[in-house]
Amino acid sequence: MIRVGVIGASGYAGAELVRILASHPKVTLTALTCRTDAGQRFDQIYPSMTGWVELVCEAYDAEKLAKSVDVVFTALPHKQPMAIVPELLAKGLRVLDLSADFRFKSAEAYEAHYQPHTARELLDRAVYGLCEVYGNQIRGADLVGNPGCYPTSVLLPLVPIVKADLIDTDLIIADAKSGVSGAGRGASATTHFCHVNESFKAYKVGGHRHTPEMEAILSDVAGRSLHLNFVPHLVPMTRGMETTIYTQPRSGVSIEQIADCLRNFYAGRPFVRLRGETPADTLHVKGTNYCDIGYKIDRRNGRLILMSAIDNLVKGAAGQAVQNMNIMLGLPETEGLGPCPYPM
Amino acid sequence: MIRVGVIGASGYAGAELVRILASHPKVTLTALTCRTDAGQRFDQIYPSMTGWVELVCEAYDAEKLAKSVDVVFTALPHKQPMAIVPELLAKGLRVLDLSADFRFKSAEAYEAHYQPHTARELLDRAVYGLCEVYGNQIRGADLVGNPGCYPTSVLLPLVPIVKADLIDTDLIIADAKSGVSGAGRGASATTHFCHVNESFKAYKVGGHRHTPEMEAILSDVAGRSLHLNFVPHLVPMTRGMETTIYTQPRSGVSIEQIADCLRNFYAGRPFVRLRGETPADTLHVKGTNYCDIGYKIDRRNGRLILMSAIDNLVKGAAGQAVQNMNIMLGLPETEGLGPCPYPM
Amino acid sequence: MIRVGVIGASGYAGAELVRILASHPKVTLTALTCRTDAGQRFDQIYPSMTGWVELVCEAYDAEKLAKSVDVVFTALPHKQPMAIVPELLAKGLRVLDLSADFRFKSAEAYEAHYQPHTARELLDRAVYGLCEVYGNQIRGADLVGNPGCYPTSVLLPLVPIVKADLIDTDLIIADAKSGVSGAGRGASATTHFCHVNESFKAYKVGGHRHTPEMEAILSDVAGRSLHLNFVPHLVPMTRGMETTIYTQPRSGVSIEQIADCLRNFYAGRPFVRLRGETPADTLHVKGTNYCDIGYKIDRRNGRLILMSAIDNLVKGAAGQAVQNMNIMLGLPETEGLGPCPYPM
Amino acid sequence: MIRVGVIGASGYAGAELVRILASHPKVTLTALTCRTDAGQRFDQIYPSMTGWVELVCEAYDAEKLAKSVDVVFTALPHKQPMAIVPELLAKGLRVLDLSADFRFKSAEAYEAHYQPHTARELLDRAVYGLCEVYGNQIRGADLVGNPGCYPTSVLLPLVPIVKADLIDTDLIIADAKSGVSGAGRGASATTHFCHVNESFKAYKVGGHRHTPEMEAILSDVAGRSLHLNFVPHLVPMTRGMETTIYTQPRSGVSIEQIADCLRNFYAGRPFVRLRGETPADTLHVKGTNYCDIGYKIDRRNGRLILMSAIDNLVKGAAGQAVQNMNIMLGLPETEGLGPCPYPM
Repeated sequence: MIRVGVIGASGYAGAELVRILASHPKVTLTALTCRTDAGQRFDQIYPSMTGWVELVCEAYDAEKLAKSVDVVFTALPHKQPMAIVPELLAKGLRVLDLSADFRFKSAEAYEAHYQPHTARELLDRAVYGLCEVYGNQIRGADLVGNPGCYPTSVLLPLVPIVKADLIDTDLIIADAKSGVSGAGRGASATTHFCHVNESFKAYKVGGHRHTPEMEAILSDVAGRSLHLNFVPHLVPMTRGMETTIYTQPRSGVSIEQIADCLRNFYAGRPFVRLRGETPADTLHVKGTNYCDIGYKIDRRNGRLILMSAIDNLVKGAAGQAVQNMNIMLGLPETEGLGPCPYPM
Repeated sequence: MIRVGVIGASGYAGAELVRILASHPKVTLTALTCRTDAGQRFDQIYPSMTGWVELVCEAYDAEKLAKSVDVVFTALPHKQPMAIVPELLAKGLRVLDLSADFRFKSAEAYEAHYQPHTARELLDRAVYGLCEVYGNQIRGADLVGNPGCYPTSVLLPLVPIVKADLIDTDLIIADAKSGVSGAGRGASATTHFCHVNESFKAYKVGGHRHTPEMEAILSDVAGRSLHLNFVPHLVPMTRGMETTIYTQPRSGVSIEQIADCLRNFYAGRPFVRLRGETPADTLHVKGTNYCDIGYKIDRRNGRLILMSAIDNLVKGAAGQAVQNMNIMLGLPETEGLGPCPYPM
Repeated sequence: MIRVGVIGASGYAGAELVRILASHPKVTLTALTCRTDAGQRFDQIYPSMTGWVELVCEAYDAEKLAKSVDVVFTALPHKQPMAIVPELLAKGLRVLDLSADFRFKSAEAYEAHYQPHTARELLDRAVYGLCEVYGNQIRGADLVGNPGCYPTSVLLPLVPIVKADLIDTDLIIADAKSGVSGAGRGASATTHFCHVNESFKAYKVGGHRHTPEMEAILSDVAGRSLHLNFVPHLVPMTRGMETTIYTQPRSGVSIEQIADCLRNFYAGRPFVRLRGETPADTLHVKGTNYCDIGYKIDRRNGRLILMSAIDNLVKGAAGQAVQNMNIMLGLPETEGLGPCPYPM
Repeated sequence: MIRVGVIGASGYAGAELVRILASHPKVTLTALTCRTDAGQRFDQIYPSMTGWVELVCEAYDAEKLAKSVDVVFTALPHKQPMAIVPELLAKGLRVLDLSADFRFKSAEAYEAHYQPHTARELLDRAVYGLCEVYGNQIRGADLVGNPGCYPTSVLLPLVPIVKADLIDTDLIIADAKSGVSGAGRGASATTHFCHVNESFKAYKVGGHRHTPEMEAILSDVAGRSLHLNFVPHLVPMTRGMETTIYTQPRSGVSIEQIADCLRNFYAGRPFVRLRGETPADTLHVKGTNYCDIGYKIDRRNGRLILMSAIDNLVKGAAGQAVQNMNIMLGLPETEGLGPCPYPM
């Protein structure tokens, strides 16, 4: 059994990691750390898990961690991981970071949208953990920068098509919608039930920090620098993320070519389900590691509309992180990422 | 007091008309008709209104109606109004139709998306009831085709800008999101709580019948034929509609010009609230006749993003219909369309 | 026009007062105060009200208030009103307090559940503002202690029946359910969307501070001291409160006697709607000042089950407070408390 | 591997059975039948399960079933199972029925609330599948009448206490609240999103058919006939059931005795979690087979308040049925009923 720890276990992404790892047949959860709740049993913070997780949340201590775990997940707000990941790696641990700190190859790109990077030397060593795209590099990595939820929902439908040069990369518009768990466990006006219920609105229009992350990967895949328009919205639901993407196919490209491209790219990949012209529905991926993808040409002007649905906490965070761990460790990619989804 | 009737009172748009008209200081509700619930007191179908509406829903009878009302709202599925509006007009009634039957100037356009039109001779006489745009024509009309909810949400932010030729009309992408009441009162898999709750998805991608309605009006305003991409989505909430629209400003057009254009167009119009760069939120218009509009340029590539929020049953249906009636009858435009909105 | 102020306008009860008063035909809102948001325009805190309320929230200043208002509502957490109400009264203002501070006749009862009372001398002068029960005393009052939401929902169905001595007062069990707005505007784990959504649970079992308030009034009405069991629950919805009450009718008491008792008591009272055996539904009273009441005998053992539904922010707080103001000032009781309710 | 079939797979309880069985390590799903959707692939009806269930829903055919399955679940509306269970048993299958048809020992009791029973001879052979109470009898059974959701939520907290004679059986009041999935997959006014959202109400007050089922079991356990008051309510959420039960402890019975009684009864039982004075929360059992139980004495008059929470589709239906199958077949009771629950 591989010994695993979660740093920042009390946040939503951390708790979702605990959930998945507690049932994972090849690992044992041996350490949980959190700051504000240190000293509390984890199942007091998340009573649903009573009977499954008996660990106490401890304060972070690199020495202690190094003795009790082989692999560690850092589920912290950005800026915090870059302060501790160097020592965790130095102690021989494999690290999967769920923040933005190790998602960028370019320190400049990171610093333009976040803050000065204090572990620049690791950026080359880190692999961007979009499993279906960078699987080969993940296999040998000891540091993975796990993708953001929005980038995952935007990149999975787009990467194959951009790679195959089937669309005009000057026109990519991604209109994304997220459940409230994406805003995290912190209580605020944004997450108050009475402000969310019966409310639908955009936020951070044209200014969300996940945008440069999408652009960096798409540019990498396209082989040239590109920009897109990205607008996130908040939906009155707990989990789920749907993204509708508007693009212009290159002249002569048919829907069959789009479909073939996606089918070939995702052949044999267990966590992408192609839905044809059926719109992807967040309800169908709730609690799962799936990304469902639909696609359709709008006949009136030939534009290609792509739709993806993920669970923002699973494929958008903890599930993909465990998928990355499985790949890193040479385990079957799906290990611990079942069971059969709920009907609703 | 003006005597008013609602045909098709038991559907959601009909019930919302009844609500507004029951408190309207210048009219008396004198007749309600509905098909399946005929013979029932209206407040048995909608018990919230007990104490406010004591009318019984009757079967439709043109003779009887003509004696008891001066103005009539037809809140029926399309195809039904075209069968009865001619006789209602012939009896001297003023008619506000909430279906698609009288929204098109061109019978061909209507027939391409609906069915053969049996009252083509009335299409020229009918006025498209987008109050802020066609107010002058509404004033003298006796037949108003009340706009669809999606067209209202798309047209109000776009019309001033298209009219002023500030954007490239080849790129208009409208990503719209509606609460479930838009699907009507009929019980179906689509409206089942367990299928809607925690679900977000697109539907009728590139094929919604409100699209030609939007295109007809925008083409009229632009002075040339144009197409847009429109994708509606279903949100787990009862009321509300948010639309995010992506466009390309013409070279040199600044955000100040956009803002001025909207401000000038809507100066003195009581039901449009310009929100600047703040995204429009459905919660702020719930239960009201407002259309809130926000706008922002995405600096990364200069695209203009417009956002609107309406209550799909009020400004998107019954409220706008009453606003049209007020204009028709020379009443103050806001009459009966208060009071102060709920905080949440 | 009567000049009215709201102290504590930025909380949910305060905002609901502002909403109602902004449309009230006989009053003008002339002053709003709040602590944390002082200096902000009210419609920036509650953007739905843009166009209706242009006042700025000011810091509390008794001198200034006394010059600008005739009547003042205090919508503050308990303990704060007792510190300021004496000076407000001394300056000749009429005061409607929405906290618990002036709901008890007995300082001991208050202090047993809250804290030391620093304005004990006002307790006799204050009238308990349950309009349908203490209307006569409210008429002449200058200080009203507006009832809690739970007490309103429990007392309105019970008072007539207890007064008529139709049930055994040893067995009164009130199982109440409230929407989340009852927890107030403060962001906390309790009000976080992801903790509320898909959650139903009891809280403060047998220990909610509204219980002694209910007991005091029922004891007053019964003419003897009584106890009841009260358990509140939290429902994943914004507004609404349903209470199901289990009682034992005295031997020989029939459902007809119960029905007659309620009908007689509430004859001509505009805000109580008797629903017979139909269960009261929060959806039918949402946004209104109604209390809907249903009642049924369970044939298997003769117990009487009463059900009430109110909007916790309207009849449970701000609406009843305005109803009290109307009574105090000799205005029609329903003034400003329409219009026709929403169908849903 | 044991071969298992589900009759009535397209309803909510059926689909939940399919979900659990598809991941159960000791069984293979070999047959699904349904009426209206016969001929459709199951994952077209429930697209979330794409990749997990490839069976086609077939029409019911006893011959065919007998060849392909060893154990069969009947998830049909009552009345239908009694028509087919005799032949299924005759062919040697073991049957777990989720309807009311085999829950009663007394045909009279059944017929008083349902309809004439056409398989009376099987009532003695059937075992009531409340696993924690009738486990010994379930072990050898070939026909299990799986409990209703409400009875499960009422009986698990009450049975140990009634058995130990700790409360006065004349006063048992159960106020229950259920998510909408309890109303089934059928679309109706009751399940329409817009009627459920922001609505809370009682239904079938004093007349729900699960009441005699509760009374039969409690009377069996108590050794004397008893009646209780039961009122179900509908909560705007998909899954979950909370029941608050009000009782009178016998003179001298302390909360410690209550706690000991429950602890002893449920010692070593994996699916009951005692929460002490903490109210049971549906969110903590969502998607799981747990029944969480809380208990508290209301000091003001000594009444005992019990609270339970289950997922109505799991412990209230499909999960308990699989737990019954595990017991029947001598498998570990928890087999297939994990994994670790979601944090929220």
